[in-house]
Amino acid sequence: MDIERIVKSVDHTLLKVDATWEQIREICDDAVKYGTASVCIPPSYAKQAAEYLKGQIPVCVVIGFPNGYSTTASKVFEAADAVANGAEEVDMVINVGKVKDGLYDEVLDEIRQIKKAVGDHVLKVIIETCLLTEEEKIRMCEVVTASGADYIKTSTGFSTGGATPEDIRLFAAHVGENVKIKAAGGISSLEDAQEFLDLGASRLGTSRIIRILKERENG
Amino acid sequence: MDIERIVKSVDHTLLKVDATWEQIREICDDAVKYGTASVCIPPSYAKQAAEYLKGQIPVCVVIGFPNGYSTTASKVFEAADAVANGAEEVDMVINVGKVKDGLYDEVLDEIRQIKKAVGDHVLKVIIETCLLTEEEKIRMCEVVTASGADYIKTSTGFSTGGATPEDIRLFAAHVGENVKIKAAGGISSLEDAQEFLDLGASRLGTSRIIRILKERENG
Repeated sequence: MDIERIVKSVDHTLLKVDATWEQIREICDDAVKYGTASVCIPPSYAKQAAEYLKGQIPVCVVIGFPNGYSTTASKVFEAADAVANGAEEVDMVINVGKVKDGLYDEVLDEIRQIKKAVGDHVLKVIIETCLLTEEEKIRMCEVVTASGADYIKTSTGFSTGGATPEDIRLFAAHVGENVKIKAAGGISSLEDAQEFLDLGASRLGTSRIIRILKERENG
Repeated sequence: MDIERIVKSVDHTLLKVDATWEQIREICDDAVKYGTASVCIPPSYAKQAAEYLKGQIPVCVVIGFPNGYSTTASKVFEAADAVANGAEEVDMVINVGKVKDGLYDEVLDEIRQIKKAVGDHVLKVIIETCLLTEEEKIRMCEVVTASGADYIKTSTGFSTGGATPEDIRLFAAHVGENVKIKAAGGISSLEDAQEFLDLGASRLGTSRIIRILKERENG
């Protein structure tokens, strides 16, 4: 198992509704100490975290999260606002109802507008796999590939299920070379993390990996 | 039991992540047929529902929903966007982390800014009671009273618990005369609904009440 590779792939995440600044700051401190890919936090903490971190680790925030049914205009505003506040990465949620209605053109257009709003910053697209059929997941691999977004991401962690090995395999088989894969939701062991990386993920959304490493250190 | 009073108090609600337009339209049709207070739906459906309903029943949408940790700027934009799309009522979620940090002034200022954005339209403030202590709930009764918002509302329905009789009693004892009460989350019978109204609620966020009445009709 390659612990260094795992840690470098982690978006160290705290998205619970009642998270305090002290808890967010601890996430930031641990991310710096262990050298994770980013901290993934609520947008209302983006500015404070970016000022605190001073560029040591990128701030990643969530947009239209977790239900994905804000209007496109609101999501675009929220993404631009996040970048203005210092976020370097943005994880957006698609409008799942539009997928269910087969309105893939609208879903694609929304992602493109948000990508335009974040510019050169990293955009990850959460498709909430647990709510989609296999056909819908494959269509979304194609949509995300066409959109110019940087990553496809499995899950918010707030729905009925998280990342599965099958979904990562499916993503790897159907996204274009320009799209990377983030597994998120329910990643609870180093073995899970390694498996997702081996299957083709290059980012992992989780808080537990760093917690496991801390517990090991503290014996 | 006063069925007519119950129905007139219902914000007939469909907020699941994968709701399709057909499902939202059915909610709208039932709301008109039974004469509910409003339909409560995702913001991405506000325009379509408002055009479909043509003023027969007000459209209510949710803002910063359900996690409440968008930035204030994003919530203000989202609220103004909802009103521009035809929403007559807006149910916003407070930033619970700020409550936990004791930043009541910021929570108050955010509600005031959103109230300004919605103007004469109805603003309901969801405080997510299941995550708050009794002291925090009482402080939020005072904040909502000072904010100019129209309603205090118990729950999103997406957290660890919904409305309880104790919370409605607490609200009734601590909000000012300018603030009405909405019970939401887990209201599953006509008896529940009647109890919440008797304790001081004047709105009920639920989909089940109308479903119960439909099932009765269909024998």
